[in-house]
Amino acid sequence: MSSVFSKIIAGEIPCHKIAENDHFIAFLDVSPLVRGHVLVVPKKETDYIFDLSGEELSEILVFAKGVAAKIRKAIPCERIGVSVIGLEVPHAHVHLVPIRSADDLNFTRPKLKITQEELAEIANLIRNS
Amino acid sequence: MSSVFSKIIAGEIPCHKIAENDHFIAFLDVSPLVRGHVLVVPKKETDYIFDLSGEELSEILVFAKGVAAKIRKAIPCERIGVSVIGLEVPHAHVHLVPIRSADDLNFTRPKLKITQEELAEIANLIRNS
Repeated sequence: MSSVFSKIIAGEIPCHKIAENDHFIAFLDVSPLVRGHVLVVPKKETDYIFDLSGEELSEILVFAKGVAAKIRKAIPCERIGVSVIGLEVPHAHVHLVPIRSADDLNFTRPKLKITQEELAEIANLIRNS
Repeated sequence: MSSVFSKIIAGEIPCHKIAENDHFIAFLDVSPLVRGHVLVVPKKETDYIFDLSGEELSEILVFAKGVAAKIRKAIPCERIGVSVIGLEVPHAHVHLVPIRSADDLNFTRPKLKITQEELAEIANLIRNS
């Protein structure tokens, strides 16, 4: 069965897209830790981050760099934190989170309640930054 | 002034080294979240992860993959989590943490108290795995 991310990549489930190339897509996390929390996802479905191919591993942070720069311009923060946990959705993904403290990258915190309208507005801000 | 990591790289401060190549070094975090918590550090001192060169960004996870495989063999865990926060030491570093839950990658938790002898034993386990 396809992961929820593969369904997003296939266009079966909508997302608030930030950027995309041949191998990766970046879109807003719908249960964000903070406003501007973005997921970078390889289009080829692989569960564990370190099972990505050498090519994917060598490209993912280069792709993420451009996304992180856009988030950092759009969302007030100290810098963009990076996290890969991978215990929930079995499709490798890198969290890019605009942080001011380590607690902003603490996945045991309750996630923000956020509307689709707010997500659309944040995505727009980041895309246009 | 050199960062504490540059001093480790220069051999001025000892570390429990796991692996090394021309561009990166991996050693145990001396204030680990869990046993087997490793730092991957670019030898060239750069503060912010996304200010690394394209070459460094494209190599760091490929280097980390080999380190992560060794940790995963040596330390009981679900998988190796990845985190970059960067609000403390101004020298970019990737945390590789053997996790069983998201809380194992929560940097607001108190760190483990661990002796140099225990660290040496863990480093040995990981290097030889």
